[in-house]
Amino acid sequence: MALIGILGGMGPLATVDFMDRVVRLTSTAGAACDQQHLPLLIANLPHIPDRSKAMLEAGEDPLPAMLDGIDMLNRNGVELIAIPCNSAHYWFDAIRGHSKAPILHIAETCVAAVPHGTRRVAVLATGGTLHSELYQKMLSARGMEPVVPDDATQQRIDACIVAVKAGEFGESALQLAAALADLKARGAQAAVMGCTEIPLAARELSAPPMTLVDSTLELARATVSYALARGWNTRQ
Amino acid sequence: MALIGILGGMGPLATVDFMDRVVRLTSTAGAACDQQHLPLLIANLPHIPDRSKAMLEAGEDPLPAMLDGIDMLNRNGVELIAIPCNSAHYWFDAIRGHSKAPILHIAETCVAAVPHGTRRVAVLATGGTLHSELYQKMLSARGMEPVVPDDATQQRIDACIVAVKAGEFGESALQLAAALADLKARGAQAAVMGCTEIPLAARELSAPPMTLVDSTLELARATVSYALARGWNTRQ
Repeated sequence: MALIGILGGMGPLATVDFMDRVVRLTSTAGAACDQQHLPLLIANLPHIPDRSKAMLEAGEDPLPAMLDGIDMLNRNGVELIAIPCNSAHYWFDAIRGHSKAPILHIAETCVAAVPHGTRRVAVLATGGTLHSELYQKMLSARGMEPVVPDDATQQRIDACIVAVKAGEFGESALQLAAALADLKARGAQAAVMGCTEIPLAARELSAPPMTLVDSTLELARATVSYALARGWNTRQ
Repeated sequence: MALIGILGGMGPLATVDFMDRVVRLTSTAGAACDQQHLPLLIANLPHIPDRSKAMLEAGEDPLPAMLDGIDMLNRNGVELIAIPCNSAHYWFDAIRGHSKAPILHIAETCVAAVPHGTRRVAVLATGGTLHSELYQKMLSARGMEPVVPDDATQQRIDACIVAVKAGEFGESALQLAAALADLKARGAQAAVMGCTEIPLAARELSAPPMTLVDSTLELARATVSYALARGWNTRQ
């Protein structure tokens, strides 16, 4: 039995959303009973220090706690790891170098899903991820122009993320809607939701003003594809 | 750091629902950022043989696979275990006897939440759980009268559960609504949803005809209460 490891808790509701996506995508792919689903081992470790604060304000380094989680998953024999937190991918090379099991890269899956022909793509992410330029570099490398929020818009995105983490979805949606209006006015044709809290706010919007590409969903798609291609939904 | 173990995958979407409840209840209890949430280790093992078939049709024994999952959780040092599957509790004594960590009993948490003064309580469960009389005995012991579905109504409940496991929520809700109408006609004043798939169908009903007590939610409440009382939401 091949297990998929998930390093989660960053944040916990985003991990729930990721797991929900994996299960529903597996159903859509044909699973009609429990036994046709994928075995998962989810280490939901919310005590990992804040990733964005570590990048922006020299806050406590989250890497040791993340590596502890990666060790736990590997000790249990997982054969693939997914990390449904974009900011954590700032430390991707160190995490990948530490792990026996291969790790999918959330931003690679997300950027690959931007609709063909899109030119100007807004980056919705934590201040830390934005500062790391992870998404900006990947979009540019694929010939797209990243639209980076100005300070006032980024404050709205930060407030949206904090509100989701506190379970305040109405507030999160208000902040996100205002940020998207700003970014549309600046010519963005689509946006990557490069923080796994943002899709939970976006779900509250009745009509987003542009195409929103969901990093949680795209990581889940890549995870399910990887596993189904290897028959991990069949008991072995 | 105290970890809560979850033996899941029975079914996988019910495990997602349980985790979602745990996270939202922790938010409601005051968690305002990731680091105030509870560490969880979720073994989502959908390949565990069908519990109801084992009870009713002498299908493959699920106990060895469940004990493997319990061993995995204990090896990782969990200090409490929750199993969001009612049918699995047919083997509760054997599982509890095997586990170092204490295990919460889903039916005890669910029956304790039936509103005071309710006399006739319908039992919504798999055929296997119904056959085990788990809920009937607990309700009777607390002075309530269990209303057991007749064969035609139980066929609707079984169809509801199968539909949820296949991701067919519209069909699941139709079957559940018809079953509840039958049970109301027989005098049920409330129902225990003693199968963790049923709450996912109930969420599709606009106006259930009686109080529905949700075993997933009640197990999540007991889990969060246990953990918060011990300060497991604070990093240690």
